[in-house]
Amino acid sequence: MKGIYFDGIKAVYREDLPVPVPSDTQSLIRILYAGVCSTDKEILKGYRPDFTGIMGHEFVGIVESSSDPAWIGKRVVGELNAGCGTCIYCRTGREKHCPDRKVIGMDGKDGCFCEYMALETHLLHRIPDGLSLQKALLTEPLAAALEIPKQVHIDPDGSIAIIGDGRLSYLIASVLHLSGADLTIIGKHPEKLAQFEDFGQPVLHTDDSFELVIEASGSSSGLELASRLVRRQGTIVLKSTYAEKAMVDMSYYAVHEITITGSRCGPFAPALRLLDKGLVQLPPVQFYPLKEFEAAFLTPAFKAGFSIPEDPEQVAHERRLIHGCT
Amino acid sequence: MKGIYFDGIKAVYREDLPVPVPSDTQSLIRILYAGVCSTDKEILKGYRPDFTGIMGHEFVGIVESSSDPAWIGKRVVGELNAGCGTCIYCRTGREKHCPDRKVIGMDGKDGCFCEYMALETHLLHRIPDGLSLQKALLTEPLAAALEIPKQVHIDPDGSIAIIGDGRLSYLIASVLHLSGADLTIIGKHPEKLAQFEDFGQPVLHTDDSFELVIEASGSSSGLELASRLVRRQGTIVLKSTYAEKAMVDMSYYAVHEITITGSRCGPFAPALRLLDKGLVQLPPVQFYPLKEFEAAFLTPAFKAGFSIPEDPEQVAHERRLIHGCT
Repeated sequence: MKGIYFDGIKAVYREDLPVPVPSDTQSLIRILYAGVCSTDKEILKGYRPDFTGIMGHEFVGIVESSSDPAWIGKRVVGELNAGCGTCIYCRTGREKHCPDRKVIGMDGKDGCFCEYMALETHLLHRIPDGLSLQKALLTEPLAAALEIPKQVHIDPDGSIAIIGDGRLSYLIASVLHLSGADLTIIGKHPEKLAQFEDFGQPVLHTDDSFELVIEASGSSSGLELASRLVRRQGTIVLKSTYAEKAMVDMSYYAVHEITITGSRCGPFAPALRLLDKGLVQLPPVQFYPLKEFEAAFLTPAFKAGFSIPEDPEQVAHERRLIHGCT
Repeated sequence: MKGIYFDGIKAVYREDLPVPVPSDTQSLIRILYAGVCSTDKEILKGYRPDFTGIMGHEFVGIVESSSDPAWIGKRVVGELNAGCGTCIYCRTGREKHCPDRKVIGMDGKDGCFCEYMALETHLLHRIPDGLSLQKALLTEPLAAALEIPKQVHIDPDGSIAIIGDGRLSYLIASVLHLSGADLTIIGKHPEKLAQFEDFGQPVLHTDDSFELVIEASGSSSGLELASRLVRRQGTIVLKSTYAEKAMVDMSYYAVHEITITGSRCGPFAPALRLLDKGLVQLPPVQFYPLKEFEAAFLTPAFKAGFSIPEDPEQVAHERRLIHGCT
């Protein structure tokens, strides 16, 4: 099959990859669309030195075969972290934190920039019937935004700042403005910030203070700005990950009783509900065929994706006819 | 009057200090006992370079005169932070975080290592009638321990580690073991750790992991240990303050979704209720007269304090007779 393979140094387009054989707890998914995440670009820069394999972890597809036949023919999205099933994290609803987990497209498991992928059946979520595949493709990054209201209380009467004007910030703003809270989005790029006007006040600079500051700039300088903006007894949500360590005055957080909460992958079910109801504005996605992966990785758009068969919506439609799904 | 005055470089015992004149929002308090906190020792090392004045912020006393006559003759403790009354923090119940606040014994306001102190009347709390003055003296540090359950959820079925075997850790353990939670106390001094046996498991080292880790070691290395001990999606409460910045890998907290909550002064009312009911075990306090302040600052006991009149309990008793309080 076709796919984008990371050989440990660079990404390569190949047409000779074997179709995976699912285990007795997995499903085989025919991938229709896949999304490029900044993590994929980080992998090309050496973020996951031990990983070789098919890249990608954001996908929509159709189940071809499954450990549970009820899934066959269903349009699905899927979570990326497959835990060991026995550790303290897997036993307490925190599978994504299993120290021995495999992660599609980045850790011990082939990803979705290809035609077929095998995934643990319990990680699948069905796409609601009326929801388009291109929108459903944003389930995973939208879930990452929804991890914030899952972790911290969003006060509709509170003041919230979001640092960063990239795609994750866009989805976070798209979710949090639904609470009624007053949002300020602090970015560096006026042309990107302009796209945040529906959600709150996009600004290049502010002297205000905020009860809740979301740090999603992707840069280590973001924490410094967040610490300056957050009120005493306020909360910083840390979405950014970066390789370098930072010099931090931890006593500042103790004395001012500031809370810092790390935040990562989030819940798929509410993301699918919000998408299905059309309640979240979505960033535009620009699609490429797999073999143009270099252009996709360099796209200046908010988001790039791969369209894997010629017309995935048509494929999905035919699939529904064949399997008799609505 | 007698008192211990910090002249910007060193502490000096003086007998020529003027008795303060309370403003029309303050009360004048005759100090009976005062407690030495490690913050006082930090002031001697230069922690508050702008402060000169009478030291000390932990006290019990009797109200001699007051903006509200109902307070006269009452046995009291008092909070240390006096805010401006108009900023966002004062207007939202966070007076202790007012950027323009004055703090007794350390910032813009004389403290309690002396015979009389003036304090804003709204910062006073009455000592319940049956509670001894020596026990009530621990209200302020006990309140700092109670700030933890005020800020974070204490799961009675959870696993909690406390890092540090000093006085603050003792009061934290004394409060948190009341929840029924399983406590592990990690210290460096076997003789101090032995005093924690009623609260949980005192250990020099552990390979376990914990949902909640309280960092109260007072050292910057404590955060490193806390980060190693805390479970993914767990919480670190940061009680320690120290001068130096630390090199911190903030991405570690983001990826593992760890929450760090700074914690400082706490609520007096529940501290007085717990003391009154005799529910908390208290560390022993060794009392000195004011002029032996050097010995008090060097005491190896869990806690040192000053006994200001010859027999404060007797003074308090006579005061009650004079004012007809029970």
